[in-house]
Amino acid sequence: MGHIARIEKALLAALASSSAPDGPPRLAAACRHAVFPGGARIRPQLCLAVAMACGDSDPVLTDAAAVAIELLHCASLVHDDLPCFDNADLRRGQPTVHRAFDERLAVLSGDALIVLAFQWVAAAPAAHPSRLAGLIGTIARGVAAPHGIVAGQSWECEPKVRLSDYQRAKTGVLFAAATAAGAQSAGADPLPWLALGDRLGEAYQIADDIRDVVADPQMLGKPVGQDAALGRPSAACELGLSGAFEQFERFVAQASAAVPDCAGAKALRQLVKQESERLVPRAWSRDLSRNRVPEVCRAKNSLATPARAKAQQSAANGVAH
Amino acid sequence: MGHIARIEKALLAALASSSAPDGPPRLAAACRHAVFPGGARIRPQLCLAVAMACGDSDPVLTDAAAVAIELLHCASLVHDDLPCFDNADLRRGQPTVHRAFDERLAVLSGDALIVLAFQWVAAAPAAHPSRLAGLIGTIARGVAAPHGIVAGQSWECEPKVRLSDYQRAKTGVLFAAATAAGAQSAGADPLPWLALGDRLGEAYQIADDIRDVVADPQMLGKPVGQDAALGRPSAACELGLSGAFEQFERFVAQASAAVPDCAGAKALRQLVKQESERLVPRAWSRDLSRNRVPEVCRAKNSLATPARAKAQQSAANGVAH
Repeated sequence: MGHIARIEKALLAALASSSAPDGPPRLAAACRHAVFPGGARIRPQLCLAVAMACGDSDPVLTDAAAVAIELLHCASLVHDDLPCFDNADLRRGQPTVHRAFDERLAVLSGDALIVLAFQWVAAAPAAHPSRLAGLIGTIARGVAAPHGIVAGQSWECEPKVRLSDYQRAKTGVLFAAATAAGAQSAGADPLPWLALGDRLGEAYQIADDIRDVVADPQMLGKPVGQDAALGRPSAACELGLSGAFEQFERFVAQASAAVPDCAGAKALRQLVKQESERLVPRAWSRDLSRNRVPEVCRAKNSLATPARAKAQQSAANGVAH
Repeated sequence: MGHIARIEKALLAALASSSAPDGPPRLAAACRHAVFPGGARIRPQLCLAVAMACGDSDPVLTDAAAVAIELLHCASLVHDDLPCFDNADLRRGQPTVHRAFDERLAVLSGDALIVLAFQWVAAAPAAHPSRLAGLIGTIARGVAAPHGIVAGQSWECEPKVRLSDYQRAKTGVLFAAATAAGAQSAGADPLPWLALGDRLGEAYQIADDIRDVVADPQMLGKPVGQDAALGRPSAACELGLSGAFEQFERFVAQASAAVPDCAGAKALRQLVKQESERLVPRAWSRDLSRNRVPEVCRAKNSLATPARAKAQQSAANGVAH
């Protein structure tokens, strides 16, 4: 079974465990809507790929970890799309959960997915249950305060923010949790695997900023120009497109170099390469004027907004990753 | 150290672990606001009392379980107070989190507390780590879909609801998780302890309905009349006050009878008695006309609302607990 098929099967099993004939049917439907059909499933793929590279000695636990990480990612998207945050209508080409159902079910389905993530890992009939505590700790750190996704989203509510803190918390930390969890579920030391996830997460966040100003909304399955419109810190706005492209390439190279020596190193570097081309096709940087500043950012920068304050603050601190 | 002091100390330690100088300060403040000062802390008290009755052989794990249950309860209050649900201004006599901070931080602090609950249990330096998986499963079931608190809140979004399903999911299941977790953290079989939590949870929910129409808002620290105003299923509206008082007494008696034979049985029955008097003072049922129907319910029942449909549906199904 390929990695994607293995992930989808495990996600289906987890979701099935959280519904019952005597449970509220709209909550179950909202949870399914939040998880299927999925995006690239890059985080669980990464978790699986690292576990395989480390011998995958407890595949049941690996699957559960990959599921937990994807459920937490999906939950963060549902809450991030809420009217009080991005007020997004579309996600993965479909209505967002609060549009397809309602705002209450969007809050609750996000909550339910967070709980299910930890419940599913704890319930896994693991061959090595002694790995459980460390694994849950690693997964939780990827989303928890003070440095995980929830903290990342919270930086949008602060008067001062450093772009590097924001990006690392919003994306990098869960990527690092995905690689570390893959190692841990296979009984390996997670530490050498953190850098790969961290660099890839940074690359992914910059790719997201680039795609927000360059890509076709049809391809993304959501509107573009959201960062500037919502006053969110964005590398594409701060560095210009050429700077963002360079930063992206740098992070991808660092991710590739961070793959520890192991039997599966080649396959992992291949995954990094494929994913980077999928995220930001090289043709984009060839086609675009090297010094172009996205129109949406220029328009935004003429306004006095929290985004501007954030950009100035970030510039003052230097955007060092 | 008394139970309450032990719980507050453990909660403070958990909250401290989720903030850091380089984390978003408003998120940390919103989390603290959601947890301190607390209410009666009845769920963690129950967890501790049952663990003590079972020998409390792993107090570190017991504390972590009690903390997790209280954090999950606090998170559910924060999300339940949101504008899309109850749009509440006050909780425990203070502004709700979305009023004191903003709506985004209310969503995120709730999320952060849910994650912290599981993270804290997994991180506990337990004397018996083999108890961890079962304990997390028990705690998760108290909040998860399809039968925990999240499901309970979701029943408010369904066109059809049975009062018994709604009340059990919204309150009873986390109470049952509290007693079961107390037993499990002490290495005892959780099953004999479920009935105590379940009955007490039902009593608590009915007490909440009674207090919503009878109590002084100053005493509750939040407005009264909310169930009827928001069209939520309510035993006080459905059964009238006298019926609700009788139901409450019945559940309290059942809870007391459900305490398994053990060294701590007497102390536990005393806790049940004290708590029932705190919730619904006997003077209330003496002072109030036995057949009075709350004004707020009468006003509400003259309208065609989802509440009315729910009440009719519940009446049709019989309110069997």
